[in-house]
Amino acid sequence: MARQGDVLICEVGPRDGLQNLDIVLPTEAKCALIDAIVAAGVPEIDAGSFVPPKIVPQFADVDAVIAHALRHRGTAIGALAPNAKGAERALAAGVDTLYFVISASETHNRANVRRTVEDQLDQFRAVVAACRAAEKRPHLMAAISTAFGCSLEGRVDPAAVRRLALAFRAGGADEVGLADTVGYGNPAQVKALSKAVQADLGADFPVRLHLHDTLGLGLANAYAGLEAGITRFDASVSGLGGCPFAPGARGNIVTEDLVFMMHELGLKTGIDLDRLMETRAILAAHIPAPLLTGHLHEAGYPKVLRGQPLARGM
Amino acid sequence: MARQGDVLICEVGPRDGLQNLDIVLPTEAKCALIDAIVAAGVPEIDAGSFVPPKIVPQFADVDAVIAHALRHRGTAIGALAPNAKGAERALAAGVDTLYFVISASETHNRANVRRTVEDQLDQFRAVVAACRAAEKRPHLMAAISTAFGCSLEGRVDPAAVRRLALAFRAGGADEVGLADTVGYGNPAQVKALSKAVQADLGADFPVRLHLHDTLGLGLANAYAGLEAGITRFDASVSGLGGCPFAPGARGNIVTEDLVFMMHELGLKTGIDLDRLMETRAILAAHIPAPLLTGHLHEAGYPKVLRGQPLARGM
Repeated sequence: MARQGDVLICEVGPRDGLQNLDIVLPTEAKCALIDAIVAAGVPEIDAGSFVPPKIVPQFADVDAVIAHALRHRGTAIGALAPNAKGAERALAAGVDTLYFVISASETHNRANVRRTVEDQLDQFRAVVAACRAAEKRPHLMAAISTAFGCSLEGRVDPAAVRRLALAFRAGGADEVGLADTVGYGNPAQVKALSKAVQADLGADFPVRLHLHDTLGLGLANAYAGLEAGITRFDASVSGLGGCPFAPGARGNIVTEDLVFMMHELGLKTGIDLDRLMETRAILAAHIPAPLLTGHLHEAGYPKVLRGQPLARGM
Repeated sequence: MARQGDVLICEVGPRDGLQNLDIVLPTEAKCALIDAIVAAGVPEIDAGSFVPPKIVPQFADVDAVIAHALRHRGTAIGALAPNAKGAERALAAGVDTLYFVISASETHNRANVRRTVEDQLDQFRAVVAACRAAEKRPHLMAAISTAFGCSLEGRVDPAAVRRLALAFRAGGADEVGLADTVGYGNPAQVKALSKAVQADLGADFPVRLHLHDTLGLGLANAYAGLEAGITRFDASVSGLGGCPFAPGARGNIVTEDLVFMMHELGLKTGIDLDRLMETRAILAAHIPAPLLTGHLHEAGYPKVLRGQPLARGM
């Protein structure tokens, strides 16, 4: 369903970005944001999370948002389901892509989904069974959180990440995601683990990177991922996802900056950067300026580069 | 003179950082900043510029600042001289390192030093002669500005950069710098041009990268430089150097974030990151908060990583 491009960029602002905000966006604003992202040509959107509204009030309207998003043909509309119950709701909503998540660090997994890693793998098997029984079978992207570091445990054993990736493939995932949930990863680590997991899963099995920019290494890590052969990346418009309780802490890597880097590297994304920048106005109407980041937004796209051929390699 | 490390990081905040500010820092603040940078173990500091005070009032006190800085033994104290007259003053001040600069783009060179590139090469030869005749002969680092893009001309021909690098070596430079003056470079370009220039100049000839973070690719470019074999980098504490007339536009890559990346990659810099962070307080007393950037400053160094061994490669 994704449009043709050298690199697939999935916009996760409407889910991972909003989930960390204590401001609940009106449904119309979420729909307008999704419309603008679609209009910019983004091939895939993580549009919400099927979690109990009591736990994450931001997604109380997820059914309405997904129903709206699915009107757009040609863009894969996904949602997160952290357990079998959430997956049943996502399947009933008819998502194109379903995201499931396990943390590589036991402590983070318990904090995030209140289960052991083993119990969460049981949930995964139930989610796979539900997907297979569904009328519309979604693409199942299984993500490994804290794959490059954990805010509770610190360094994370790459062997644990590789084991979970293999368990996901064996269990029926269509794709595996490596998530630098807290942004502790460095480029050498991202490159090495991306290569190892791809080698473990086989050349044809898709692997994506989900990177955060907490410590400034987000785009360096994305470049390292590219060098390791990764061509699928999550990112968030305006770097949404910073925690309101840690002013200045950054969220996901900024989609606009990532797209700029890809285009400067000569890679096609299918995304119109000028139109993508228009998402800022929608967000700015609801979210305080310090939570909206991005170098392209701050410096502006250099006019002098427009229409010029790319910087030559040697 | 530089301390032992895998990577040499030169702090350019006191020169390149301050030169773009319209706030003139008191001499005592500049000296306190340099003292704090030295205390953090930074092996080299670009401490000022020998330019006419009428043109850049920030450096009217450059003689006093350099004299103060040179009291620190074990740290190379450098200054910029854009012409032979400035070099004579720098030599009289007794700098350890002298920086000279030519732009790869003709238009930028005229705007920056009011000369053609050819005339600026004549100045370079005069600077070399002055260095050779000086009582204390400094290390001569000759930098090529706009090596990866120009705000006036856009893309820059890598062949022009390579020609200038060879002219610098032939003319008597001890080191060549490749400067992404306006921050338009991308990692593939930085990697390719760094490799080409190193191959042109020979394995033993030192080449450094001077990167700006205007469009968010600064650390990705630094990582690409590392992969190309570059081990010398300029950077600026708190990312000083943003233009006050373009709010939010970023300056040099942030030294604190660069040091963090190097340490996470397992590379020694000889720099104490905690002490380096203390420079922020000195700057904050004089410079508005929006002009001081840095992910480490915003997010804080993750306590959970302290004392843990580095993230393992595979």
